[in-house]
Amino acid sequence: MPRVLLTGFEPFGDEADNPSWDAVRLLEGARIAGHRVATRCLAVEFGRSLRQLRAAIRETAPALVLCVGLAGGRAQLSLERIGINVDDARIPDNAGRQPIDVPVVEGGPDAYFSTLPLKAMLHALRAAGIPAEVSQTAGTYVCNHVLYGLMHALRRQRRVRGGFIHVPYSPAQATAHPGAASLPTATVAEGLRVALRAALTTTDDLRLAAGATH
Amino acid sequence: MPRVLLTGFEPFGDEADNPSWDAVRLLEGARIAGHRVATRCLAVEFGRSLRQLRAAIRETAPALVLCVGLAGGRAQLSLERIGINVDDARIPDNAGRQPIDVPVVEGGPDAYFSTLPLKAMLHALRAAGIPAEVSQTAGTYVCNHVLYGLMHALRRQRRVRGGFIHVPYSPAQATAHPGAASLPTATVAEGLRVALRAALTTTDDLRLAAGATH
Amino acid sequence: MPRVLLTGFEPFGDEADNPSWDAVRLLEGARIAGHRVATRCLAVEFGRSLRQLRAAIRETAPALVLCVGLAGGRAQLSLERIGINVDDARIPDNAGRQPIDVPVVEGGPDAYFSTLPLKAMLHALRAAGIPAEVSQTAGTYVCNHVLYGLMHALRRQRRVRGGFIHVPYSPAQATAHPGAASLPTATVAEGLRVALRAALTTTDDLRLAAGATH
Amino acid sequence: MPRVLLTGFEPFGDEADNPSWDAVRLLEGARIAGHRVATRCLAVEFGRSLRQLRAAIRETAPALVLCVGLAGGRAQLSLERIGINVDDARIPDNAGRQPIDVPVVEGGPDAYFSTLPLKAMLHALRAAGIPAEVSQTAGTYVCNHVLYGLMHALRRQRRVRGGFIHVPYSPAQATAHPGAASLPTATVAEGLRVALRAALTTTDDLRLAAGATH
Repeated sequence: MPRVLLTGFEPFGDEADNPSWDAVRLLEGARIAGHRVATRCLAVEFGRSLRQLRAAIRETAPALVLCVGLAGGRAQLSLERIGINVDDARIPDNAGRQPIDVPVVEGGPDAYFSTLPLKAMLHALRAAGIPAEVSQTAGTYVCNHVLYGLMHALRRQRRVRGGFIHVPYSPAQATAHPGAASLPTATVAEGLRVALRAALTTTDDLRLAAGATH
Repeated sequence: MPRVLLTGFEPFGDEADNPSWDAVRLLEGARIAGHRVATRCLAVEFGRSLRQLRAAIRETAPALVLCVGLAGGRAQLSLERIGINVDDARIPDNAGRQPIDVPVVEGGPDAYFSTLPLKAMLHALRAAGIPAEVSQTAGTYVCNHVLYGLMHALRRQRRVRGGFIHVPYSPAQATAHPGAASLPTATVAEGLRVALRAALTTTDDLRLAAGATH
Repeated sequence: MPRVLLTGFEPFGDEADNPSWDAVRLLEGARIAGHRVATRCLAVEFGRSLRQLRAAIRETAPALVLCVGLAGGRAQLSLERIGINVDDARIPDNAGRQPIDVPVVEGGPDAYFSTLPLKAMLHALRAAGIPAEVSQTAGTYVCNHVLYGLMHALRRQRRVRGGFIHVPYSPAQATAHPGAASLPTATVAEGLRVALRAALTTTDDLRLAAGATH
Repeated sequence: MPRVLLTGFEPFGDEADNPSWDAVRLLEGARIAGHRVATRCLAVEFGRSLRQLRAAIRETAPALVLCVGLAGGRAQLSLERIGINVDDARIPDNAGRQPIDVPVVEGGPDAYFSTLPLKAMLHALRAAGIPAEVSQTAGTYVCNHVLYGLMHALRRQRRVRGGFIHVPYSPAQATAHPGAASLPTATVAEGLRVALRAALTTTDDLRLAAGATH
């Protein structure tokens, strides 16, 4: 059966858990639209995360790669449109490194669009009652690093599509962040399943406005 | 068995559902800390909502009253500290009335504090992994109207405690509000159960900072 | 000439300046609608701030009292509707005290509405191109303490009106708070002048919706 | 004297003014760091705005191009890091067109980084007391369209640097948007002057973290 590679991240910063991995692990081995899901947990480290991702791509030879990360403070599943070729870290990564304005890939293009059908995924998520939005930036930390590096790795394999989804805090995490939004792990996992199914069954993306005026 | 009266609201504005009632109804008949829960759904109408609430208090003779309403846009369960003696409606209520700067109770005091042990409830919610906060304002619409009217109705029955909790959008509702926070009905209902248990088992409230600098 | 008492606050927390006093001091001695403005700078201390305010009221015998404080993070001039009888401090005051759930005035009523014509002030500010809103909570820190204490002090002098306006960070302060809103001191001072003129020339407040649904 | 080209935009959407042009026009003819400022007002139209911009570049042969646009709701001057090759309009432009997921330049690269020294500009703005931040997205509307098109036009003229700054509402505009941040035109114009001076006098950008974790 063809495979989907689905990755989450280990905890970072002051957090004891990372809801991206907590949700992703629930889908290990799941069958979605005729594909088997393989999961991996990536380090929150510049460089090492990408080496892990590339190794996982070699091991699983997936038809589609979806990486998932935490966006503490965002309220909805964020379908990332683009990864950009810069690391600019406000806080050190889990190995203590804090690159500032360094390219992800020396000499690489400035950015890569995700090749997932974002609008079809957005439509499917909303139809399933799961709040989602298209995001125009994945930031400049390890999540963007992984998205850019993923699309760079896939640049010559145009049949393998790739992209990134940011997820909110878990409710338990949000108890330490007054006023912060959250979604339960079960809701996020269901959202990932819905998004993957839409991605795997969509050839031509929908035409659905989901931009930002700024 | 002594009773708890728990109320939600019917839908209002552009919303087809009201997650306050969707969560409250799940607790109909539940037994919490030696009390039986009776539930009611209130109209989103100035005046009528309070007549319904007072009738429900007479019918159920509760030991504690907790009213629950929707605060679309808030991300956590909001334990309301105070109801104020003013109706100032930005949108008409479900009967088409839009009072502006009219007292809830002519000649009543300017405000009533909730008599629930908010800090103990906050502590219990967070310990249970459910994001919550104390709120210093319930607004000036029907929710505040009901909170003020509840505390006015209870002003001579100091053994019957009362208060109000605002809850976020449901995930399905949030799909129509890009960027808006939400919590599933099951999470909210579990939060109400935890909050009620804390309220029913706490005599002297905790001393726990949960104020706002502004 | 009858007088207006206008107060600001000294700096607190991590801030080196307090834009409330920076704006207020610009109006010292100003003549507005036939009144002379007297200004005072209050301590950011529970208790002492109110003793200073009561002394200033005795000294100036004002026709109207307007207290002004910083609400770092708010974007517009906030006309406060009500002060509530509780101190609940998230951070210590400038004397190191951090009261939690203590009344401002032991045995006082739960709250006092401002007696200023908020809607007329709001209308005048907007007409003058100065962004403003009515706020339903002044928090539970020293600003609310002063508003509640002011209205308590004036409770038997119904001819002397009183209220509170919260102002945003200054632009210079906002440089240390990424993403935070700000308004220049000159804009705030002009807003206070406009608000005072409206308050002094309005007998019956306007009927203008400015409430909150929650 | 070498020239700087500085552009603003005409009003769009429901707004009667555009603070980007209101601020930019104040700098017409100004001399900054040995350069003369030439200003232009661009149409809020996909396509036409870029034709106007390219014509202005031909006419003025500038050493540096800075385009400025409104980001209603943002609170600080936003130094845009990157323009991306997509138009995805949530609202029609001033000519009634609403492209969805169309490239700005057919066959162009996915994105172009600004070539301005953003961190030096950020540092200079903060030192001058003007709130500013680096932004990782200029959206997908006409502002991003112009930024992408500008960098595409300059791609073979590496000595001509270019970039984009988003500015907040004016205070007068914010009176129609309760809770929205704003900055006066004079503050914005002063910020543009400070930013241009920093850009014109900086060869190697500062190393200063200003990224986003997501």
